[in-house]
Amino acid sequence: MKLGFIGLGKMGFNLVLNLKDHKIDVVAYNRSPEPVKEIKKKKIDVAFSIEELMKKLPKQKIIWIMVTAGKPVDAVIKEALPYLKKGDIIIDGGNSFYRDSIRRYNYLKSKKINFLDIGTSGGLSGARHGASLMVGGDKKIFRKIEQICRAASVKNGYAYTGPSGAGHFVKMVHNGIEYAWLQAAGEGFELLSKGPYKLDFEKIARVWKNGSIIQSKMMEWAEDAFRKDSKLSRMQGVVGGGETGRWALNTAKEYKVPFETLNLALKSRKKSRKKPRFAGKVIAAIRYEFGGHEVIKK
Amino acid sequence: MKLGFIGLGKMGFNLVLNLKDHKIDVVAYNRSPEPVKEIKKKKIDVAFSIEELMKKLPKQKIIWIMVTAGKPVDAVIKEALPYLKKGDIIIDGGNSFYRDSIRRYNYLKSKKINFLDIGTSGGLSGARHGASLMVGGDKKIFRKIEQICRAASVKNGYAYTGPSGAGHFVKMVHNGIEYAWLQAAGEGFELLSKGPYKLDFEKIARVWKNGSIIQSKMMEWAEDAFRKDSKLSRMQGVVGGGETGRWALNTAKEYKVPFETLNLALKSRKKSRKKPRFAGKVIAAIRYEFGGHEVIKK
Repeated sequence: MKLGFIGLGKMGFNLVLNLKDHKIDVVAYNRSPEPVKEIKKKKIDVAFSIEELMKKLPKQKIIWIMVTAGKPVDAVIKEALPYLKKGDIIIDGGNSFYRDSIRRYNYLKSKKINFLDIGTSGGLSGARHGASLMVGGDKKIFRKIEQICRAASVKNGYAYTGPSGAGHFVKMVHNGIEYAWLQAAGEGFELLSKGPYKLDFEKIARVWKNGSIIQSKMMEWAEDAFRKDSKLSRMQGVVGGGETGRWALNTAKEYKVPFETLNLALKSRKKSRKKPRFAGKVIAAIRYEFGGHEVIKK
Repeated sequence: MKLGFIGLGKMGFNLVLNLKDHKIDVVAYNRSPEPVKEIKKKKIDVAFSIEELMKKLPKQKIIWIMVTAGKPVDAVIKEALPYLKKGDIIIDGGNSFYRDSIRRYNYLKSKKINFLDIGTSGGLSGARHGASLMVGGDKKIFRKIEQICRAASVKNGYAYTGPSGAGHFVKMVHNGIEYAWLQAAGEGFELLSKGPYKLDFEKIARVWKNGSIIQSKMMEWAEDAFRKDSKLSRMQGVVGGGETGRWALNTAKEYKVPFETLNLALKSRKKSRKKPRFAGKVIAAIRYEFGGHEVIKK
């Protein structure tokens, strides 16, 4: 099986290396050539144009797209389409809104081309060493590429969740929970920082990540962040991101589900731009640890 | 080292078995005799009165108290006190409010008796197979009983967090985060349940617990709960508990920290009594998995 991979951002770059480690042949392409040159040094087969990419792939083509959600996904599909034929498979492994994925599925179906939406979680280290994948689309198409999912994920770390859109839908809800968990962790550490004790946050994150009820990867990343900067004094506490969280909140409203913790987390991110607080520093630091998300440093 | 253990509730019972597995000699006592008889069957040395317990302990006494927070702790201390002398050590491993722990520390200090507050996390399986412990009190007294902490906890699962009260303070903040995380997980699964897809929650909890950003023990327990009851149709969605959460929220207010996610989680637990929702079912089910906390079943 040979996979054409489009999009070598932070997640895509790592995912390609991960796939290679797990014996999936990849031809990697990115619009700007720098990451292509970079990944070529790591013995990855590369292409510098969509045309070159397609020529390097077998007759039955499988394309994994990993670009910014929204127009870039449509642009890539449009550019790839002339090279694809009946039965080929496009996978969108990015953070697309699930309704866009359904639209793309239907559009491609009219051209007899298959489309899967895969929500990819786990951050940069997950992409590199084992992600968590939520797959939507036709089940029989999923079966055809299942070995790619197995290769890219940790043990039991992929699941077919349902028809078109179900992968990105589940990933979107996951992100909603993530936002709220980050907010709560940030607020908790803020209380530790303002309470009556002088506390060692790194030590506390470590004991919480080992055996507690809130044992989690999030606490592992918190420990890493505090190890590097014990009071996060170099951070500003402004939290970026927010798009997938807003989708999740709007979807929750549409289906009349009070996703109050997410609502609160989103409001707090917005507020953080004007009035940074320690909770925001913690959230920004953890997001940086897992996703390399931008932080404003002093 | 021989430890007198008072309180064989769900957590205490498991912790005693865990300590025994890790070569800590324990004499176990409980006010009502049933759990004493029960644990005796498991080759634990037991006592049926405080007096008997004390007689079975060496000259330098170490007592671990694991009873309901509040008056029961004071009552046990009062009853134990006549048998204790200078240099003995009382550990409160329960969920006491940290200010009560400071008060007890000061009271016992006036009698030359040492007191440590240990926040114990990890639920029933943690108590049985490796907990997460947050220790407050005099550091040199902690050092004297450190081997007990090592025996009771998972690897790197205990920490001395600071002077008297710091163990229970950190545990209280941990519980605040726990409440908010449960709330967010509950709301997320509610969105999954009301959204446009028919989803397999057990499968989703499994993929989230393996490699995702919200990988956590909480998702492991969610998976266990959905495996037993795939739609939680036998649960009512009423969430109990709340005391430690209220302490955390009041403390946050006192120190002017907006612990908004916790505030919301507490309000939602209260509302759940009148107007149960699916989120509450998820929270109750996860709490049952980790702590055996009561649930109202249909």
